[in-house]
Amino acid sequence: MKMMQLGTRTLKNSKEFGSINATYLTRGAFIDMTMAGVYTFLPLGLRVLNKIENIIRKEMDEIGVELSMSALSSRQHWEQTGRIDHVDVLMKTSGANEASKNKSTNEYILNPTHEELITPIAKKFNKSYKDFPFAFYQIQTKFRNEARAKSGILRGREFRMKDLYSFHTSQDCLKEYYEKSKIVYANVFKKLGLGDSTYITLASGGDFTDDYSHEFQTKCKSGEDEIFLDKKLNIAYNKEVSPSKAENYEQDSQLKEMEDIRGENIKGMKELSEFLKLPYHKCVKTMIYEIDDQKVVAVAIRGDYKINEYKLKKILGCKILKLANEETIKRVTNAEVGYAGIINLPESVRVIFDDALENMTNFECGANKTHFHTVNVNWDRDVQRPDKFYDVKEAKEGDSNPESGDKFEVFAASEVGNIFPLNTKFSKALNYTFTDKNGEEKPIYMGCYGIGSSRIMGLIVEMFNDEKGIIWPEQIAPFKVHLIDIKSSENRAEEIYKQISDAGVEVLFDDRDVSAGEKFADADLIGNPIRLVISDRNQGKIEWKNRNEDKTELLEISEVMNRLKP
Amino acid sequence: MKMMQLGTRTLKNSKEFGSINATYLTRGAFIDMTMAGVYTFLPLGLRVLNKIENIIRKEMDEIGVELSMSALSSRQHWEQTGRIDHVDVLMKTSGANEASKNKSTNEYILNPTHEELITPIAKKFNKSYKDFPFAFYQIQTKFRNEARAKSGILRGREFRMKDLYSFHTSQDCLKEYYEKSKIVYANVFKKLGLGDSTYITLASGGDFTDDYSHEFQTKCKSGEDEIFLDKKLNIAYNKEVSPSKAENYEQDSQLKEMEDIRGENIKGMKELSEFLKLPYHKCVKTMIYEIDDQKVVAVAIRGDYKINEYKLKKILGCKILKLANEETIKRVTNAEVGYAGIINLPESVRVIFDDALENMTNFECGANKTHFHTVNVNWDRDVQRPDKFYDVKEAKEGDSNPESGDKFEVFAASEVGNIFPLNTKFSKALNYTFTDKNGEEKPIYMGCYGIGSSRIMGLIVEMFNDEKGIIWPEQIAPFKVHLIDIKSSENRAEEIYKQISDAGVEVLFDDRDVSAGEKFADADLIGNPIRLVISDRNQGKIEWKNRNEDKTELLEISEVMNRLKP
Repeated sequence: MKMMQLGTRTLKNSKEFGSINATYLTRGAFIDMTMAGVYTFLPLGLRVLNKIENIIRKEMDEIGVELSMSALSSRQHWEQTGRIDHVDVLMKTSGANEASKNKSTNEYILNPTHEELITPIAKKFNKSYKDFPFAFYQIQTKFRNEARAKSGILRGREFRMKDLYSFHTSQDCLKEYYEKSKIVYANVFKKLGLGDSTYITLASGGDFTDDYSHEFQTKCKSGEDEIFLDKKLNIAYNKEVSPSKAENYEQDSQLKEMEDIRGENIKGMKELSEFLKLPYHKCVKTMIYEIDDQKVVAVAIRGDYKINEYKLKKILGCKILKLANEETIKRVTNAEVGYAGIINLPESVRVIFDDALENMTNFECGANKTHFHTVNVNWDRDVQRPDKFYDVKEAKEGDSNPESGDKFEVFAASEVGNIFPLNTKFSKALNYTFTDKNGEEKPIYMGCYGIGSSRIMGLIVEMFNDEKGIIWPEQIAPFKVHLIDIKSSENRAEEIYKQISDAGVEVLFDDRDVSAGEKFADADLIGNPIRLVISDRNQGKIEWKNRNEDKTELLEISEVMNRLKP
Repeated sequence: MKMMQLGTRTLKNSKEFGSINATYLTRGAFIDMTMAGVYTFLPLGLRVLNKIENIIRKEMDEIGVELSMSALSSRQHWEQTGRIDHVDVLMKTSGANEASKNKSTNEYILNPTHEELITPIAKKFNKSYKDFPFAFYQIQTKFRNEARAKSGILRGREFRMKDLYSFHTSQDCLKEYYEKSKIVYANVFKKLGLGDSTYITLASGGDFTDDYSHEFQTKCKSGEDEIFLDKKLNIAYNKEVSPSKAENYEQDSQLKEMEDIRGENIKGMKELSEFLKLPYHKCVKTMIYEIDDQKVVAVAIRGDYKINEYKLKKILGCKILKLANEETIKRVTNAEVGYAGIINLPESVRVIFDDALENMTNFECGANKTHFHTVNVNWDRDVQRPDKFYDVKEAKEGDSNPESGDKFEVFAASEVGNIFPLNTKFSKALNYTFTDKNGEEKPIYMGCYGIGSSRIMGLIVEMFNDEKGIIWPEQIAPFKVHLIDIKSSENRAEEIYKQISDAGVEVLFDDRDVSAGEKFADADLIGNPIRLVISDRNQGKIEWKNRNEDKTELLEISEVMNRLKP
């Protein structure tokens, strides 16, 4: 393709966005921001997106059949599963003006995910055990009412996604397919050039399942997620669910005398630590929660940790979990807010003790008495050692995996895919059963499997770039070759352009009447893998340079054609 | 592909919809209705849609560059062009529940067309005369708040569309491109198998332009539009804009005496005609309108015609046009509603006389007197013959083209494409100019060009079917071959399936354990062009049948492979 036909040009002076992908993709004229989180894919960008989606499509065809579900659905679809009120990214549509409202007052849901649609479709066609397993997938635009959308195409209100849904007659069958999907996903990321940096990661099931889900997380400085990798067991966790064994500190062997110290208006760990001249890890925080049926629960945790509410919810097996209000805290602790501790709590209050507390001696905790902090607390002597300590803390750098004892490698990553064992959640809600060999009605097991294709495009830019621009992996580059004509005589560049095109090689020909410097800068910014320069200075040879290397070579056209062969 | 892998099956007993396309596409498992006007494309349907869109894409690549604009835009985009309040299919989005509204209270427009987005994009990249002309196109899902959506995928609230936008430095350049686009469009419809039945048709420019637009209308019994074709001039008009020369009736040569006849509560032409024993074409209807600045206008038209308000608006050059209310009619005619006529109207009321009235004698009209109808009215004697008669009537069967005198061929058709000369409408609204050779700022001329790809899929079903099902043209059929195994021994069908697949021929293999009759019925319903039957009865030969023929042939496998070669 000739650059003059693109209809776009690089915008080298466009403003810097908060993310590399937004900045480079905008400057390179791959995308254009309609508004925050909503982008147009310009001709160059659409080429990249299509290549990414075709790589995904090819792998998905191995395990499912493609269809394309409507973006709109009715409220009823979402009422049936009970998600209408609590999926917090759900958007609806309605007439935008009086004329439109007069035409139709209907409101529709703009689907952010398609369980509500695919389940009735599957149900319509497949009812007998002979029909299972099967899976449908689609690649299409999704809509989500995100609060913030500042990371370019890493997180959008409108974005492209592949979503696949599988249907099974047993949990074993689902599990088998689920494991197979991990392999297929790994192939996708390998083919996209992300194989080495992408980790299968355990994560929360969110709205979809009570089980763990699995995320495919690609290591990337600008990633929104924090991953805890146990290299020994080759297992990775999203911070939100990561188990955690705290770093141990040496403890006093001599038990000191317990003492209440007056300290008014000490707010937070920092002030407390400074006031008492104790490190965080000598302190115990006690947080009061309210759960189902207005039960009150206390959680005790080492001062250098936060509580992981995902873990806490699992331990308690509760649906509702919220920090108690002031009134409740006062009632339970007999003190103002800020002085909760683990000594002398009412018997009715269950206390969850984090396992980092187990070996502590002479520790601090709130005194359950306004203005007072108790120091040199010890197990058994001052407070009954619980039968069981729990891992209820948010994992942090330095922690180990309790299972292996290995210290986690912790890094930022971006989620490029996720898979969820839905089990019977949606089939039950939508009353989808099958008839087994004996004529009995049994529940269907489902899984869902997502890959964010536009996000992957952004992520690849975040990962593969230098100060001059993007460095596309060849398989998804807009063009393989970036051909530059520096005023060559007798249409030579044009001829070579034709020769390369005719050989079936994708080539972007910079045929513009601008300076060589501008052409070189644009080639680097756009980031096609091979740059060829045609100039009369090169005595009939062609200059070859790979985008990811500094060296240039002068080659005969025959050698160029030879190397370009697919 | 094997049928067992499709995940769908035919639904032969599903209900009959109001349109052939909805009925057959649903029964054949090509589409699934989410709700009225909103459909999922099931695996078979998506294959057809993709083929249609790829045919369109290939032709569009000749005249434009593909991109993909966001479906969402801001209200501001639509406020700038002033279309926010009067595009009556416009939809907006907002949070669907409290949790979502808490995340973001933003409202977005769900674009039914993309002039508001493409113009600023074009402007961002192209400002110099050297950059022109250029054109962008996209193929994507559009959203429109239609009042009714009952014709399957012929008219949807969510549908697929190709839209192209061209940009030019002069009207001449736009015109040249516009003419070229007609040729490209004709190629598209030819390649889709619709060439012989598709007509370039003059139509109203709607919201887009004051000029005529051009529609591509495919003759089809179930089409929503009525087309007036002048075969002599090879020009076709949409009824909404068709010129019309009325059929002439013999007129009395003897002028009779004018007379007011009392006829109370005569409502409408039918009652009037019966009461006065006059044919419709001897009567003149007078309608009172209000236009810009509350001016009142009367329109006189022969009794067997309706007024075409598009023509009337053009004649009057007005923006507002509405039927006058009761009060105004009473004031102007000095009578109750229903007795308006052309005699004795106030001088301030301009009367537009339709040209079918020109040669009438002894005609009837309202008396402008409650309960009275005047008969035997004649020009000059009773009412002043106007300087000019206008064509203000809605064309109907039997009319001729005033230009050629040729009688129109009138037929139903479905709009498969449309092109609009937008001229400077959007560039002016969005302040898009270019700099010419002399450094002067000048306006950009634009055109827009649409093709409804999902509608085309529906239309093709409407056109190519029989009582058994769909008859797909080969180029868009889901598969070329429908392979049926009738209990052949030794995996023979499986081997032949493999052989055909390996040859790169798309084949759907009915490997189900169902009766031969069911397999044949499904093959006819799904409508792939070639049906092959493998049965031990055929002594090693294969039965070949084209979907659109009755005859079957027994062929050697070598001959089958030979014929299947692309």
